[in-house]
Amino acid sequence: MASSEIDRVRALLVSRPRPSDLAERRERLDWLGSLSTMPGDVRVEPAEAGGVPAEWTSTPGADPARVLLFLHGGGYVSGSLASHRVMVAEAGREARARTLALAYRLAPEHPFPAALEDALAAYRFLLGSGIAAERICLGGESAGGGLALATLIRLREAGEPLPGCLWCASPWADLEMSGASIETKDAVDPIIHRPYLAELATAYLNGADPRGPLVSPLHADLARLPPTLIQVGSAETLLDDSVRLAGALAAADVAVTLSVWPHMIHAWHLFHQQLAQGRASLAQLGRFVRNHLAEEV
Amino acid sequence: MASSEIDRVRALLVSRPRPSDLAERRERLDWLGSLSTMPGDVRVEPAEAGGVPAEWTSTPGADPARVLLFLHGGGYVSGSLASHRVMVAEAGREARARTLALAYRLAPEHPFPAALEDALAAYRFLLGSGIAAERICLGGESAGGGLALATLIRLREAGEPLPGCLWCASPWADLEMSGASIETKDAVDPIIHRPYLAELATAYLNGADPRGPLVSPLHADLARLPPTLIQVGSAETLLDDSVRLAGALAAADVAVTLSVWPHMIHAWHLFHQQLAQGRASLAQLGRFVRNHLAEEV
Repeated sequence: MASSEIDRVRALLVSRPRPSDLAERRERLDWLGSLSTMPGDVRVEPAEAGGVPAEWTSTPGADPARVLLFLHGGGYVSGSLASHRVMVAEAGREARARTLALAYRLAPEHPFPAALEDALAAYRFLLGSGIAAERICLGGESAGGGLALATLIRLREAGEPLPGCLWCASPWADLEMSGASIETKDAVDPIIHRPYLAELATAYLNGADPRGPLVSPLHADLARLPPTLIQVGSAETLLDDSVRLAGALAAADVAVTLSVWPHMIHAWHLFHQQLAQGRASLAQLGRFVRNHLAEEV
Repeated sequence: MASSEIDRVRALLVSRPRPSDLAERRERLDWLGSLSTMPGDVRVEPAEAGGVPAEWTSTPGADPARVLLFLHGGGYVSGSLASHRVMVAEAGREARARTLALAYRLAPEHPFPAALEDALAAYRFLLGSGIAAERICLGGESAGGGLALATLIRLREAGEPLPGCLWCASPWADLEMSGASIETKDAVDPIIHRPYLAELATAYLNGADPRGPLVSPLHADLARLPPTLIQVGSAETLLDDSVRLAGALAAADVAVTLSVWPHMIHAWHLFHQQLAQGRASLAQLGRFVRNHLAEEV
């Protein structure tokens, strides 16, 4: 049943704890992704998006005019095309869209704003290749969720067309870790704790202000952002990043939906082949995208 | 278009300001409800629910085994079967359920806990008449949303079966008015301002503690509450009641969805015949209820 599924995922995470060595840490996240099997009907194609390594996926029902541009999680220091490949492909299936996943540059080798520049380049590549902004969903998980918000803020400030909608899964939107859930959910979150977040923030910020709107979009002007779906588990230390982000978007008159998944852990979508709630959360994303992206004319 | 629709509703509210006289105030809310026309296919039937005046509605597609038990808004001092009749009937149509609207006792004649006792009596009446708890959606608007939460808390404490889901439209969950939006949205909210709320709170509390969990469920233990949909407009002084309530439910591991509707005003569902967003919010409620109430066996 549902509870034993999440218990098995927890046991899996405990079976191979996160290493401190950077290369081993990256390899571990790829390993977690490799536990999912790519369905036979997914077409995967390597790409370069504005100079950034990327990857297309498409499933039989995908509308070629609609794209989910995806920014993976991993705290700005890990995560790859490999770690999130199957999850992104399934998100695209539910959204009936092609997906373009981005291998943005990682810290500490490439601190802020390298990842942001890469995300902007990829989005502009999509527009330049003829995809209409209103047929793009920008999506991001964990650090990728914060990065997606930063990307929108930069686009809005530059007067460029914004995507049709935004998807944030377990977003990290506050590099100061000032949410109460950092403490109140510490005992139930199996993977994300303050010392780890602090280490990631140091690597990504490289001396930048942790309250800056492009690293902690919780503090940004969020006006005129597109309809946004935020999905978060209730067993996450980052729960309050999502709740406060929803509040800030609401205060700015953005059409935001916050969806809280009881007992789910950080970025549980990654385990959609192991968790019914992972599949259901991707199905919810799919409905959201289909409702908010312009139909082909 | 949408913006002129909400402007026309705003003009309507300005055209007949809320009177200070209690009887006139109640009459005005009934008048607002009377601006909607009851569709010809709705069957309306007077009822008594555990000794409380009530009313059934049903539409042709309604499953007789499913019930939306509805608690109207009006700050615990106004609102009636008449004021919300058409809106409730349409909510039931979207939910494909019968509705039972309740004329719970009002303050100042009947302060806390009279309304709560009436809501409990009506829910128990439904169970006693053979409706399964998991086929009931408890719904409430504004003060009725807070009342619905208080009802659930009492039921949980008594060990009684909880309804299958909860719907809160623009809920009032904090009789201290401690949310920031009380000030930040004051200029854009056409109807709900601090002095009015303070007057209502005084009438309902009649000396009770405004932080009590059964009058301000924001402070209640919310564990084990059923899946909850909270809908709120971004032009509401009560916006933060919804955001904080979503956060409190999330912290308590409840499956909560917060849906924020840009530029909508307090309890905009009431104007569903004037507002596309009113109809869309009832449609969203309908999907939520259909997803969360047990099917008939």
